[in-house]
Amino acid sequence: MKKPILNLAFLLSMTMAFAQTQDEIAIKTIFDTSLKRGKSYSMLEYLSTSIGSRLSGSPGAATAVEWCKTTLENSGFDTVWLQPVMVPHWIRGQKETARISSKKSGTMNLNVCALGGSVGTGSTGINAGVIEVKNFDELKQLGKKNINGKIVFFNRPMDPTEINAFDAYSGAVDQRVFGPSEAATYGAIGVIVRSMSPNLEDYPHTGMLRYDSAVVKIPAIAISTKHAEVLSKLLKEDRSLQFYFETHCEMLADVASFNVIGELKGAEYKDEIIIVSGHLDSWDLAQGAQDDGAGCVQSIDALRILKLMGYKSKRTLRAVLYMNEENGLRGGTEYARQAALKKEKHIAAIESDEGGFTPRGFSMTVSDTVRARIKSWKPLLEHYGLTSFDEEGGGADIGPLEEQGTALIGYLPDSQRYFSYHHTAEDTFDKVSQRELELGTASMTALVYLIDQYGLK
Amino acid sequence: MKKPILNLAFLLSMTMAFAQTQDEIAIKTIFDTSLKRGKSYSMLEYLSTSIGSRLSGSPGAATAVEWCKTTLENSGFDTVWLQPVMVPHWIRGQKETARISSKKSGTMNLNVCALGGSVGTGSTGINAGVIEVKNFDELKQLGKKNINGKIVFFNRPMDPTEINAFDAYSGAVDQRVFGPSEAATYGAIGVIVRSMSPNLEDYPHTGMLRYDSAVVKIPAIAISTKHAEVLSKLLKEDRSLQFYFETHCEMLADVASFNVIGELKGAEYKDEIIIVSGHLDSWDLAQGAQDDGAGCVQSIDALRILKLMGYKSKRTLRAVLYMNEENGLRGGTEYARQAALKKEKHIAAIESDEGGFTPRGFSMTVSDTVRARIKSWKPLLEHYGLTSFDEEGGGADIGPLEEQGTALIGYLPDSQRYFSYHHTAEDTFDKVSQRELELGTASMTALVYLIDQYGLK
Repeated sequence: MKKPILNLAFLLSMTMAFAQTQDEIAIKTIFDTSLKRGKSYSMLEYLSTSIGSRLSGSPGAATAVEWCKTTLENSGFDTVWLQPVMVPHWIRGQKETARISSKKSGTMNLNVCALGGSVGTGSTGINAGVIEVKNFDELKQLGKKNINGKIVFFNRPMDPTEINAFDAYSGAVDQRVFGPSEAATYGAIGVIVRSMSPNLEDYPHTGMLRYDSAVVKIPAIAISTKHAEVLSKLLKEDRSLQFYFETHCEMLADVASFNVIGELKGAEYKDEIIIVSGHLDSWDLAQGAQDDGAGCVQSIDALRILKLMGYKSKRTLRAVLYMNEENGLRGGTEYARQAALKKEKHIAAIESDEGGFTPRGFSMTVSDTVRARIKSWKPLLEHYGLTSFDEEGGGADIGPLEEQGTALIGYLPDSQRYFSYHHTAEDTFDKVSQRELELGTASMTALVYLIDQYGLK
Repeated sequence: MKKPILNLAFLLSMTMAFAQTQDEIAIKTIFDTSLKRGKSYSMLEYLSTSIGSRLSGSPGAATAVEWCKTTLENSGFDTVWLQPVMVPHWIRGQKETARISSKKSGTMNLNVCALGGSVGTGSTGINAGVIEVKNFDELKQLGKKNINGKIVFFNRPMDPTEINAFDAYSGAVDQRVFGPSEAATYGAIGVIVRSMSPNLEDYPHTGMLRYDSAVVKIPAIAISTKHAEVLSKLLKEDRSLQFYFETHCEMLADVASFNVIGELKGAEYKDEIIIVSGHLDSWDLAQGAQDDGAGCVQSIDALRILKLMGYKSKRTLRAVLYMNEENGLRGGTEYARQAALKKEKHIAAIESDEGGFTPRGFSMTVSDTVRARIKSWKPLLEHYGLTSFDEEGGGADIGPLEEQGTALIGYLPDSQRYFSYHHTAEDTFDKVSQRELELGTASMTALVYLIDQYGLK
């Protein structure tokens, strides 16, 4: 009795297969191609391990631009070009050192790194007492009389109960970005910031600070979360402990660099542009595998896969690899400025800058109508893990296109592991899962396909 | 004008907060507790790095049983006990070796390991020509005349286009489980199986084989996926190449061991039992961090968290840590046998045995009614990444409870990285993300809470 039932099941499945829409088949082909013939993983291996760190203005950044141009040229794009942009050139100099001296606990070296953009202490270093605070209100209440001449230690952890780790980051990163100038307002001579991580780790996380031009620039460092806990504990035991740190970073003159762009011309509405993008620069401590090598190779491979499938786009598709997301956003700003000058019409900009992790969905800065249109594609995408379409978002580099009416869309991978690596020496190629990366590439490709087919109006 | 708008937003959010249901609040408390005060990560560190591998019958397994009992006793359970079960005792013996010799390419050592349960070659080893096949049909077509006296090499990869990696595993693992006896039917003297992984890696994956008692037992090894590719290539160049391998594994007499059980007695329907579970044993090559240390510590911590929250359950809750999932399923079988003997009523059994990765949902072997009931809780769970409720599944250890009418439920984490570590020396604690593990714990806890509150009828 088994056989007839099996045959019926077979016939039913065949019927269902024939009833698959063209879009279902196209999207399955996209995922199959990425998982079987994808190049994002091998491209990322080269970018991360052979080129490595590529902070704006560094030799690594210049090499990455050349590599990216060649890679785009070899990936079947119609046109590839470099878009010039002047970028800041901050250097870390000699490795940082920090230690505490306490009558109670003796001396101990701590794991720290200068924050991006910080001035250095020079070889004399800074030695002073430490005032621990959790936020700017506490700082204000302590006031100049308690803070003057001291080092301020911002020690508010990322909130572990935020399910999306980026929300926890947003809730804590004011300490790193604005803490140095806030503390300087009250006469602080240096700043220590707890690393932006939900975990207890040995290594510090760097990242950008912003000096207020009205306030004196004081040196600032990040401390590993484990050593932030140690410092806090020792401060409770001995409020007079002394903290010494030495950094040799400095800001040099701006340097000429480039965004790298590859284009596939559209057949039907060639004036309507859809971009997939990531940023080529990374922090100096890291290989920049997840941040944002992943987004770069996914963007390149997304369009290579469409080409490989023989897909002829209706609209013009561009892979855009921005320079200088980490410490200036000059690339994203220049790209939008040029787009406005040339009166280009960007209907959608997709960015991947939350790591090459397993797919969850897309975040957006779009009108309700556009969001509804994109959400209407959920039945085509949810099989691949793409179920989240309600979050606000996009990407830093594509942000400047918002005022041109471009729909901003961020690829939304799972967020749980991102801040284990973000802006640290741990952001290396071995932390990337090939399958997760390739599924992300395919997710972006599928969305490009759907926007290209149906537009966003 | 900004201020009144902000205040309105604040009032609205307060109103919404007060409108939160009791269940929403309970589930948020569960996740907050796991992420802030969870012990699954520290427990897993001990189990993985201080105890390590714990194949049934090994000293590690015995130590794990003792550790688990003590841990349950210290976690506030009402009753903790050991349930005796006899388990197989297979040992690997000396490390395996394998090499090829070819007139064309010379000799080369290969990365292999004996399959679990395999007989060994002894120190004389096996030396023979190799026949590569992709499946049992090819084997049959080649027949005894081509296979007799040879080593059969099963080299069908896991299908990378399956989005759920477990589906790809299911589609390939027949080679490992049944390949040795299938090959022996045609006179093969040894078997090489391509490791069960979607990636190209240097290390082999072990795992269980099943000998057909009607066929002679021949030695079988797994080969790393990279070396499977090498072997296949060299075979194309030189069909007469010789393969030598030596294994020293053997099956000893059964050993006494235990399932470990902790119980919280219910207040209202104490005869209705809900279990959360994982398996304590792991393969000998590995720390067994993801497989299945994760499931063990999640099960223990799920009930510890409810206790910590002051939650009094209506039903009886049990954490069950099974022995011998990997090579016999004796623990799961014995647990179900005892449950039947004692006429216990298990309304639901939850197992976590797909790793401590980020939450995706729950798989089930249940009636349509029960599935609909569980799916009705999706609005409470989807914020935490739990969106998938349609997959069939459960867990190997809880399988034997099916005939007692128990709803079988598997915790369904993201599957993409599981088979990078599965049954290998790479399944170590450093591959576990604390947040992912703790979110998994909380997911299981939330489901226990909902089933306890509402039952499944």
